[in-house]
Amino acid sequence: MHEFEIIRRFFSGKITLQKDHVVIGPGDDCAVVRVPNNFELCLSTDTFIEGVHFPFQAKPALIASRLSAANLSDLAAMGAEPFGFTLAISSPEFTEHWLEEFSDQLEDDVEKYQNPLLGGNLSRGPLSLTMNIMGIVPTGTAILRSNAKVGDDIYVSGNLGDAAGGLALMEQIADQAVKNSSLLERYSSPVPRVDLGQALRKIATAAIDISDGFAADLGHLCEASGFGAQINLEALPLSTELVRTFGLEVARVKAIRGGDDYELCFTAEPDQASSIQQLSECLKLKLTKVGKISHDKSVSIKDKLGSPFDEIEGYQHF
Amino acid sequence: MHEFEIIRRFFSGKITLQKDHVVIGPGDDCAVVRVPNNFELCLSTDTFIEGVHFPFQAKPALIASRLSAANLSDLAAMGAEPFGFTLAISSPEFTEHWLEEFSDQLEDDVEKYQNPLLGGNLSRGPLSLTMNIMGIVPTGTAILRSNAKVGDDIYVSGNLGDAAGGLALMEQIADQAVKNSSLLERYSSPVPRVDLGQALRKIATAAIDISDGFAADLGHLCEASGFGAQINLEALPLSTELVRTFGLEVARVKAIRGGDDYELCFTAEPDQASSIQQLSECLKLKLTKVGKISHDKSVSIKDKLGSPFDEIEGYQHF
Repeated sequence: MHEFEIIRRFFSGKITLQKDHVVIGPGDDCAVVRVPNNFELCLSTDTFIEGVHFPFQAKPALIASRLSAANLSDLAAMGAEPFGFTLAISSPEFTEHWLEEFSDQLEDDVEKYQNPLLGGNLSRGPLSLTMNIMGIVPTGTAILRSNAKVGDDIYVSGNLGDAAGGLALMEQIADQAVKNSSLLERYSSPVPRVDLGQALRKIATAAIDISDGFAADLGHLCEASGFGAQINLEALPLSTELVRTFGLEVARVKAIRGGDDYELCFTAEPDQASSIQQLSECLKLKLTKVGKISHDKSVSIKDKLGSPFDEIEGYQHF
Repeated sequence: MHEFEIIRRFFSGKITLQKDHVVIGPGDDCAVVRVPNNFELCLSTDTFIEGVHFPFQAKPALIASRLSAANLSDLAAMGAEPFGFTLAISSPEFTEHWLEEFSDQLEDDVEKYQNPLLGGNLSRGPLSLTMNIMGIVPTGTAILRSNAKVGDDIYVSGNLGDAAGGLALMEQIADQAVKNSSLLERYSSPVPRVDLGQALRKIATAAIDISDGFAADLGHLCEASGFGAQINLEALPLSTELVRTFGLEVARVKAIRGGDDYELCFTAEPDQASSIQQLSECLKLKLTKVGKISHDKSVSIKDKLGSPFDEIEGYQHF
């Protein structure tokens, strides 16, 4: 298929949306968008490479779902509302089957998050996808990493470690018991916390999404804020399925070190506790207090007896 | 080197700029920018892959320069002023030498076009770079491909075919005579027509940048506008160096089919001729009338005797 036919059939005609802010969508030298007055634009870019960020021969739907979640999750961490994205794909070949499954999945996310495709690029090369996503926030309300204060409570959304558990199980996928594990879904189609992020604009002092692992990402937040963190090991939210599959010890390691959860880690002043409780009920999403921001500049994870848990390295890209 | 050290040393500390519109630069989950009231945002994305868009073992400066030009050229074609960019790089390894030469070259372009780095992504993988660039235009003034009208004059900036000539010469680089050819520079560090694009906002009816080749890109413009074009073969601007190196016939084929020039092709009503002449003098940039928009829906290139020139295929990505 010719490049322009691929774009028409699977992208520009399918995963764009009629939105007032999109003046010119895909097809010209640039897309043209209108950012509303009194809003700021948030932007982030993420690359997914075969064999690095997803397994070889991964299903196109898994790739689309994880790429989309990773990018939306960056918007969520800023409190931004999705605005649109561009997508650059390189692939050794573009088959109809691959394109259809990939764009079907992307279409679901485009509709669900009202996040239209604005433009893109197709090339021949090793399988690699770069999404550049944009969101908007009312001027001055973006939630930064750098704003946590000593004494702030530290929260995480959902459960930690499930995606790392799911990834480990992918290698044993032939096993019928494994096939039914809910952890697989948590790896293959993570749910970015887009609504939570926007609701946190007036509540959180700082936020980051958990992509490299809880300890590593909390470490980034602490470093940016110039403080440290005290985390209660027993407070870390673990799914029943993760503990049942791997046992408590391994489940905790995955919760602390495992990446790909795309949950949010955020900080808030202690008097926000009841607002956060209400938000949790409203969104039907567990929000767990796991510790506090502290003066010392490291992330310390201890059990209730005060013994340190030493597994605090996150995912290292290199 | 660790990812964050690379970012600090070669990117976030080096190729960002202090600009009022950049609220948050690299380092958080998203960059945050402020688009001025009464302006629209133009955005484009381009991927460069080793062995596809630049030769294996290409110098980092060549890669940076061509990547930057390709992206800035898309802004130029819309009449947009550079606003900033994100950059995703994947590479099998990141050496200090590579990073230094690459970021030095990028820094030059960042300064020259006042186009700051806003964020990015580094991954291990096959050498591939995706730049996502943004520009701004006063609301409603972006120059589209789709707006050409029958009777409009067709212009091109600069000379055509030099970059294709330069690429052909790269394979004979050991030859001393070749080493001094100005065509090499036209391939390795093309000049995006950023000032011209902005000046054309009130003059041009339509514009496109020449990246796939003159005939192919003019074809895109004609298709988007719903018309065709009559081009005078003898009018195509050729450099003395291109004709001297390859002879007139091959030079014309390169001018018509060769990609990578990053000149602008634009249309304007005939009564704009004197404004265009003035603009050419002001920018010290040749602007040549090469034909007219016509009713029939194809691009026809004929010599003065009316014989058609059949070489009108552009660069096919696949």
